[in-house]
Amino acid sequence: MASPRIVYLNGEFLPFDQARVPVMDRGFLFADGIYEVSAIIEGRLVDNAAHLARLDRSLGEIGIRNPHDAAEWERLQTELVAKNGVVEGLVYMQVTRGVYERDFAFPPADTPPTVMMFTQAKTVIANTLAETGAKVVTVEDLRWKRRDIKSVALLAQVLTKQAAAEAGVAEAWMVEDGAVTEGSSSTAFIATKDGRLVTRPLSTALLPGITRAAVMRLAAETGLTVEERLFSVDEAHAASEAFYTSASAFVMPVVAIDGRPIGEGVPGPVARRLRELYIAMARGD
Amino acid sequence: MASPRIVYLNGEFLPFDQARVPVMDRGFLFADGIYEVSAIIEGRLVDNAAHLARLDRSLGEIGIRNPHDAAEWERLQTELVAKNGVVEGLVYMQVTRGVYERDFAFPPADTPPTVMMFTQAKTVIANTLAETGAKVVTVEDLRWKRRDIKSVALLAQVLTKQAAAEAGVAEAWMVEDGAVTEGSSSTAFIATKDGRLVTRPLSTALLPGITRAAVMRLAAETGLTVEERLFSVDEAHAASEAFYTSASAFVMPVVAIDGRPIGEGVPGPVARRLRELYIAMARGD
Repeated sequence: MASPRIVYLNGEFLPFDQARVPVMDRGFLFADGIYEVSAIIEGRLVDNAAHLARLDRSLGEIGIRNPHDAAEWERLQTELVAKNGVVEGLVYMQVTRGVYERDFAFPPADTPPTVMMFTQAKTVIANTLAETGAKVVTVEDLRWKRRDIKSVALLAQVLTKQAAAEAGVAEAWMVEDGAVTEGSSSTAFIATKDGRLVTRPLSTALLPGITRAAVMRLAAETGLTVEERLFSVDEAHAASEAFYTSASAFVMPVVAIDGRPIGEGVPGPVARRLRELYIAMARGD
Repeated sequence: MASPRIVYLNGEFLPFDQARVPVMDRGFLFADGIYEVSAIIEGRLVDNAAHLARLDRSLGEIGIRNPHDAAEWERLQTELVAKNGVVEGLVYMQVTRGVYERDFAFPPADTPPTVMMFTQAKTVIANTLAETGAKVVTVEDLRWKRRDIKSVALLAQVLTKQAAAEAGVAEAWMVEDGAVTEGSSSTAFIATKDGRLVTRPLSTALLPGITRAAVMRLAAETGLTVEERLFSVDEAHAASEAFYTSASAFVMPVVAIDGRPIGEGVPGPVARRLRELYIAMARGD
């Protein structure tokens, strides 16, 4: 039998079944917390410094003290990955405003944040979905206005991903005023017929995707023009290619949107090339 | 020493310190849950059938099975209130989509929901704030689009209430496109100079307040005209009275908005009268 999975919780490495938080944790009562996810490839963390920087920024935006500096976070992540023997998958980190008698306003400033991490073993590189390409559906974007904060207030994203699952597809793209905003847990890209990449510019209205930024760098290095602007659902339907990016999906070709094939209806050359380049980067090549 | 407070969790009545949920609870990871709060006056639940009906509706809107019918809920609430000897205060109920390996889409349909309840002893009737009147500040409404669902995805409300706390006031009213939407945990009302009550009509953009509905009934019984329409911040500043309602604040007179006195700057006759009538109703008079 495999060893039980270990969860990190507030300074302790605990067997999975023992990792519990008090019901008065503000993460449980108020979604008053932040999370991050870093991929693990060949036992190593991918683009982790950027994820830890975003964690620090998200915490700052809602006034939670970051309990660890980046070096200490990485030490804890690495220890957890090693304890669980994860070669490929992800490490999930969550920090909440801690445990205190329920009241909307912040508890006293010396209330210790709750810190939790777990790992998930997962096939990331040889993901068969990347071979066939993913289908997506579009749904109304129901989220709040500070989408740049990676908070655990994820109910809108849960309902969005469930809409995708019920449609039998892998992801849903959210739409506001006719424009594609983001995937439920990913950044949306299209490639136009004249070969430019298009993705939404950063603002408080979307998450500053870590994989988005890396893919934009890789695209620029290969000579692709990247336009940061909103694009409509109609433009996505008419695109030559579409794909989405996330820490665990890397670059995922999209072959249909709302049942309409994109381009040839198979993963296109731009998405395939960017996926290869991203994997090479993740491997440290 | 007082007996430890008892928390209800998934069929058990547990000492407060032992009431813990697994870190994989979807309430903790995704804010994938619903809550309700009923006031307790003289050991009895106030307007509880309406709270349980709203709980059932909220659960239905996000596809969580209500684990109990109203009679069973009330039996459990009553038992918890009795165990904790609460005479005045509130009982808090929360239901989440349960515990499952983290993935945005819903877990299998047979995943048991997490059910949790606690009580808080609190002075509700003789609340001194109702004597002096509450001050409020206005802040931008950051919330998602399904504000009719009483979910635990409350981070926007936490930040809003904290803005009130940092301004040294009891509540913040949220504003969108110049109109007052709601308080961070209450319904906003004004009384115009010609004696009509104004509050926002029900829609998916606000919580259908249980106390709001009761106060509207009481107002109508006393011959007051209630207009359900949006009102602006300017109109609120110029109102003859303002107040807010919630399960635990009942009817709370507002004496200043953004530092500007409302009416005479003291609790007005309409708010005081409605508070008296609501308390009489809560007492079962």
